[in-house]
Amino acid sequence: MVDLNADLGESYGAWRLGDDDALLELVTSANIACGFHAGDPLTIRQTCARAVAGGVRIGAQVSYRDLAGFGRREMVVPAAELEAEVLYQLAALDGVARAEGGRVGYVKPHGALYNRAVWDAGQATAVVAAVRSYGRELPVLTLPGSALAVAAADAGLEVVAEAFADRAYNADGTLVRRGVPGAVLTDPDAVAARVTGLVTRGTIQAADGSDVPVAARSVCIHGDTPGAVRMARAVRAALTGAGVSLVPFA
Amino acid sequence: MVDLNADLGESYGAWRLGDDDALLELVTSANIACGFHAGDPLTIRQTCARAVAGGVRIGAQVSYRDLAGFGRREMVVPAAELEAEVLYQLAALDGVARAEGGRVGYVKPHGALYNRAVWDAGQATAVVAAVRSYGRELPVLTLPGSALAVAAADAGLEVVAEAFADRAYNADGTLVRRGVPGAVLTDPDAVAARVTGLVTRGTIQAADGSDVPVAARSVCIHGDTPGAVRMARAVRAALTGAGVSLVPFA
Amino acid sequence: MVDLNADLGESYGAWRLGDDDALLELVTSANIACGFHAGDPLTIRQTCARAVAGGVRIGAQVSYRDLAGFGRREMVVPAAELEAEVLYQLAALDGVARAEGGRVGYVKPHGALYNRAVWDAGQATAVVAAVRSYGRELPVLTLPGSALAVAAADAGLEVVAEAFADRAYNADGTLVRRGVPGAVLTDPDAVAARVTGLVTRGTIQAADGSDVPVAARSVCIHGDTPGAVRMARAVRAALTGAGVSLVPFA
Amino acid sequence: MVDLNADLGESYGAWRLGDDDALLELVTSANIACGFHAGDPLTIRQTCARAVAGGVRIGAQVSYRDLAGFGRREMVVPAAELEAEVLYQLAALDGVARAEGGRVGYVKPHGALYNRAVWDAGQATAVVAAVRSYGRELPVLTLPGSALAVAAADAGLEVVAEAFADRAYNADGTLVRRGVPGAVLTDPDAVAARVTGLVTRGTIQAADGSDVPVAARSVCIHGDTPGAVRMARAVRAALTGAGVSLVPFA
Repeated sequence: MVDLNADLGESYGAWRLGDDDALLELVTSANIACGFHAGDPLTIRQTCARAVAGGVRIGAQVSYRDLAGFGRREMVVPAAELEAEVLYQLAALDGVARAEGGRVGYVKPHGALYNRAVWDAGQATAVVAAVRSYGRELPVLTLPGSALAVAAADAGLEVVAEAFADRAYNADGTLVRRGVPGAVLTDPDAVAARVTGLVTRGTIQAADGSDVPVAARSVCIHGDTPGAVRMARAVRAALTGAGVSLVPFA
Repeated sequence: MVDLNADLGESYGAWRLGDDDALLELVTSANIACGFHAGDPLTIRQTCARAVAGGVRIGAQVSYRDLAGFGRREMVVPAAELEAEVLYQLAALDGVARAEGGRVGYVKPHGALYNRAVWDAGQATAVVAAVRSYGRELPVLTLPGSALAVAAADAGLEVVAEAFADRAYNADGTLVRRGVPGAVLTDPDAVAARVTGLVTRGTIQAADGSDVPVAARSVCIHGDTPGAVRMARAVRAALTGAGVSLVPFA
Repeated sequence: MVDLNADLGESYGAWRLGDDDALLELVTSANIACGFHAGDPLTIRQTCARAVAGGVRIGAQVSYRDLAGFGRREMVVPAAELEAEVLYQLAALDGVARAEGGRVGYVKPHGALYNRAVWDAGQATAVVAAVRSYGRELPVLTLPGSALAVAAADAGLEVVAEAFADRAYNADGTLVRRGVPGAVLTDPDAVAARVTGLVTRGTIQAADGSDVPVAARSVCIHGDTPGAVRMARAVRAALTGAGVSLVPFA
Repeated sequence: MVDLNADLGESYGAWRLGDDDALLELVTSANIACGFHAGDPLTIRQTCARAVAGGVRIGAQVSYRDLAGFGRREMVVPAAELEAEVLYQLAALDGVARAEGGRVGYVKPHGALYNRAVWDAGQATAVVAAVRSYGRELPVLTLPGSALAVAAADAGLEVVAEAFADRAYNADGTLVRRGVPGAVLTDPDAVAARVTGLVTRGTIQAADGSDVPVAARSVCIHGDTPGAVRMARAVRAALTGAGVSLVPFA
């Protein structure tokens, strides 16, 4: 039993990104953009409607305010500002989701905020404070062992660990950094086999050949890369073939 | 018994606008900016906290997306986009307000959207559809007889009529257009006397000297003009002196 | 002899739009976005570099400030603001072009500003004032007979009339409005034949079957529609086959 | 002989910031915002016009793209993006200045970009590359010894060192960090005396009482703090009284 998540709703006005319709038939959780790095209100609304119709859980993909950089440029934001910005995004998405018969079911930071919240306790705490201030006990989807996981657990929020389908791992369970050759996997069958092993055996083969234990309740599929849909299909087929149920995390 | 409303939370980042602290002690309803024409998330949050602390009702001052023009540049926005944009703003503000122990209690469009919704049935209907889709039966604060008032009433929403403290009226109850000499009143005592007459007798003296019946449950005080606080104080004092209770509309 | 123009550089950060590389091999003039409706600085710079390398003339595709609406939402902007906004965009693009060995060679408003400047003398005059204030006598590319054509001519700027390859015409030479069935033509061969007739005979067949004289020194190819590249290829091939030279307008 | 510089043109739409008119009578160089952290095109244009009228030199106050954070939030921007963003801003301001009879005479990064370019050779090099690509040999105004000073000198650009009128210095000539008590000086007479000493003797008293040599051809006056104008007046009066000429750096 595992959850598959992907980034969705990342179009903006006239600009289309990703094949949301195809991905919504493959994933069980949709990290929907909240308007700060992507996602105009109409796109957000339509994506929520489709997620609700497809029985896909909605997550708030909160981000730095950075359209030009797609939320991928790391920013140093004072804690109170960041907390308010995350709260604003979460509230906006939750209200739009409600208008379409859904609700936000979890929170997953996007891009540079995701990466910084892995090690920056201050920003991680601000994200958690925003979730708590909103008054709903929403789970936080993040890397196991991250500062965000620690801050969320400390605050009594559920932490859902995720693994990355298309990323190479180091022997200590961290990700091989982007830019290092081989850091990103592109062969759908190989990725599908890795994910199946991860879910059925709880381990993943690291770059040095060793088996690393990885406890993930959700697997992230990147949606904005060429071949993303094909890879998601392969992962889904392999998991189903191995008798794994694909369901949103509890 | 009457309500006093003013625009608040219209600072943005390093830019300050209006004397929110002073106005929050004078008005009973705060039209708080939602981030599209003004109001960064932290400003919004702090303004909500102060409104809650002061017992001032929070309204969603929804707007066109136009920071550079402060929402004062009229825009032709397709209905579905406008509806989603208003829904997004309303949800964001309501969530932030809730984090501070409040809720949005009504909706009042800002600037050019306010003006256009007076006559444009399409945009008025989109605003109303946004409010209804949010699932809370929020009152709409607008000009009596406006397209927005009609659309809101048709949709079963409560319509709250407002009058403008510092604006001259035509004999038919419409406002004298800005730009016409005498359209905007600046003498605090004269304004206070007009408002008191409006509330206690239900009429206001038009530009041609005639008495015009104006049925308003709320009176709008402009907060971003020089002397706004002094005018609000004069209005409040005059009303209280005349035995009028200042309370948020029911 | 005729010029072919298309909108280019309309990507923004992570969002890609149009097949600029293919179009740059087909057109003779590139209307490059200036950052207000599309075009981040790096995209603009790379597009200028490719235009210079390909011998394609650079035009400033100035627009309303409206990323979310891609500059397609009509706005009512005070003349002094609009003039400053157009001047700013023109200067930015010209400077970036110069860094890549080019210069801006003409100005063509985008989207809703283009359409409004067809009839709104105030906005048309503001656009012209911006061009003149920049101090270079740049031609203005627009619809023949438009308010912008009149304002530009009055100000002593060269006016270059353009026709639309994929649009149906009324018998009076105006465009059939989008939304009317048949307003947009999609068959590459039919479009190519129309454009060839237009250039070689100076007439185009209107929706009612009559022949309308159309004096255009440039023909606009829309780049952001599916099949845009195929249509541009067909137009170019047909013109070349008819002995027409494709060169930037003088 | 010394130059006085201050940040100007930092209003944005309806939001006013700083007393530009007063400061333009006191400084000799105006760091004018370019639209990315502040400065809408009309504000920029009007500020350029006033600077030209007052004989004040215009500098490009280039910044990260961050209106909500006023350019004060540090960002990690890829070099090619940053270079293009700085080039775009520089070109836009220079064009607007030209429309008002002026030209950009130097470049000074703003806020977080200024601070990061003090130590980040990558970002410093990107700023310098932008200036060079623009094709005018503009001086760069920065902290002596900064990475930006090094990169600019390496690229053959003139480096103009500046000192800060209202900041405490460490014994090694660096600034006492904001946040440390006493880091920012607020007494106009004390500041005026320090600046006069700096200019006439080439030294400034550090926080530990020692005299530090500081070779600055320009002195920065902060314009957005309360009392900024009073402080600028005091500095100007003290310098003039000591026989120092206030002129733009050569």
